[in-house]
Amino acid sequence: MKILIDTCGLDLGYKEILKAVSMLNDKEIQISVIGNENIKNDFKNNNIDFIIANEEISTSEKNPAFAIRKYKDSTLVKGLTLLKNDSFDAFISAGSTGALLAGAMLVVGRIPNVKRACLMLPLPNIKYNKKTFLLDVGANVDIGPEVLLSFAEMACEYVKNTTKNSSLSIKLLNNGIEEEKGTELTKETHKLLKQSSLNFTGNIEARYIFETDADIIVTDGFTGNVLLKSVEGTVNLFKSTLKDLANSSLKNKLGLGLIYTDLKKQLSSLDSSKVGALPLLGVGKLVMKAHGSSNAEAIYNSIMASKDLVDSHFIKKLIEIYNNRG
Amino acid sequence: MKILIDTCGLDLGYKEILKAVSMLNDKEIQISVIGNENIKNDFKNNNIDFIIANEEISTSEKNPAFAIRKYKDSTLVKGLTLLKNDSFDAFISAGSTGALLAGAMLVVGRIPNVKRACLMLPLPNIKYNKKTFLLDVGANVDIGPEVLLSFAEMACEYVKNTTKNSSLSIKLLNNGIEEEKGTELTKETHKLLKQSSLNFTGNIEARYIFETDADIIVTDGFTGNVLLKSVEGTVNLFKSTLKDLANSSLKNKLGLGLIYTDLKKQLSSLDSSKVGALPLLGVGKLVMKAHGSSNAEAIYNSIMASKDLVDSHFIKKLIEIYNNRG
Repeated sequence: MKILIDTCGLDLGYKEILKAVSMLNDKEIQISVIGNENIKNDFKNNNIDFIIANEEISTSEKNPAFAIRKYKDSTLVKGLTLLKNDSFDAFISAGSTGALLAGAMLVVGRIPNVKRACLMLPLPNIKYNKKTFLLDVGANVDIGPEVLLSFAEMACEYVKNTTKNSSLSIKLLNNGIEEEKGTELTKETHKLLKQSSLNFTGNIEARYIFETDADIIVTDGFTGNVLLKSVEGTVNLFKSTLKDLANSSLKNKLGLGLIYTDLKKQLSSLDSSKVGALPLLGVGKLVMKAHGSSNAEAIYNSIMASKDLVDSHFIKKLIEIYNNRG
Repeated sequence: MKILIDTCGLDLGYKEILKAVSMLNDKEIQISVIGNENIKNDFKNNNIDFIIANEEISTSEKNPAFAIRKYKDSTLVKGLTLLKNDSFDAFISAGSTGALLAGAMLVVGRIPNVKRACLMLPLPNIKYNKKTFLLDVGANVDIGPEVLLSFAEMACEYVKNTTKNSSLSIKLLNNGIEEEKGTELTKETHKLLKQSSLNFTGNIEARYIFETDADIIVTDGFTGNVLLKSVEGTVNLFKSTLKDLANSSLKNKLGLGLIYTDLKKQLSSLDSSKVGALPLLGVGKLVMKAHGSSNAEAIYNSIMASKDLVDSHFIKKLIEIYNNRG
């Protein structure tokens, strides 16, 4: 099995890949990396193939589709082209989500009969011992109910494939749990989900995303973005509140000192940086989006997650589902 | 000046109104309340007029517009009718937001040339010593860019009127700060805001709502709802994390014990229950939405806020602005 890893986009630097590969002891997996020739020598003695791509698409790139067309020698465009040509079974990148999605669509292409590719994110859960996957967090805006249905279907296939749990609960994010509440989009999507073969368990309000029994929560990419960034803003609001508290009195400073290490550990569980890569759903080949802050452990997890998806013919399964819709 | 207060919808009960009125020492203000005749005697000795309305629209009412048409003897319908007939200068209610908005539109009516009535909410700010008003949080979904522009204009007039600050900064909630990013709605609204006479300072991501220099952030009611409820869900996640921490070790229990009182105080500043009532913007008379968890202090603040808005002819100013658009 051949897996290609993008050396760009990693906040902690490409050397985390070296550490991750040294943790592997699966002889089936052959790792290649793609990056600037300046760093080629670093990968020499590690049984890692190095593919040269001297351009980099920045994670702050404002027009991803334009960048994909312009930077032909970028790690993203070259890496995705090699994936399309079957030179690799999977491509892992921590690069710009927008550029990776645009590149995957433009270079690799969609699964036939799937309109848009999307991205999931796992949410922590305080009530049930499970992960809930939220999608789309890949900025698909102004989409119709059929597209949201396909997002739910693909996410469902992914979670089934990964957890071996086949009785998954799917919910729709809305501004009320009532069927008749919401926008035209959510009301129409509610109807479609209800008619589908999925185990649709109704609407969910954003208030309950961390304590739901749902396995999957579906929404459009605009709303998904607002939701995630609200959570991020609120976490920062707490951090700032705690900092103010520590500075307000010796008693508080002492109290916070006692809980500091454990609180930091707990809060870091809200941080997605330790999560392995997740597949872009709807793309014809296995493109894995890793978090920019991935460390060696997260990259190792990303490699193993890719291997599992390749082994279980995940993309082929998705293609077969939509093949019947033609 | 005659102010009417709804006795329904208050989590702490209608007796908070009695406490609030006892705090008043402004002889200009004449308070009346509206409620079930069973509680009439409680208001007897307090120089408060009592108006009987024996029906109550529940805060969990699923179809507000239907309820407004059905419950003619409800405090909401009767109170709003008295407001419409100029028997009162302002109506304060902690009832269901949906029913109050629907009732205000159906009974009192809109300001001419304003398409929708909306509701604001003040957000705390960790960087600037100010409040940022978010709107719409009144569930106006599937609205066009012109409606969002009118929301921004009306909120601006409110903040100007209340703070006497006339150089207000207005931002548009979006999934990116770039002008070309977002949905059709946000892109079109961006254009309109830019062309308007408002001091539009660009898009804002949900990540930065608690640390922005903006005075007003505008969005549609669906997105506003998701944002607020995400914040609420994250606050609960945090509380649950702290609880787990306290149970995890004696050291953590001790640490949390030391900061408990002050942390609770800080977190309560995120709680909107202590905020006074805010006007429904776009309604032809002064309808003030109070928080369900309002205590006597919040009700007192709501009365004083209503008085200021009546004194400054706030509704008349709004009517004049839109009069020119006819």
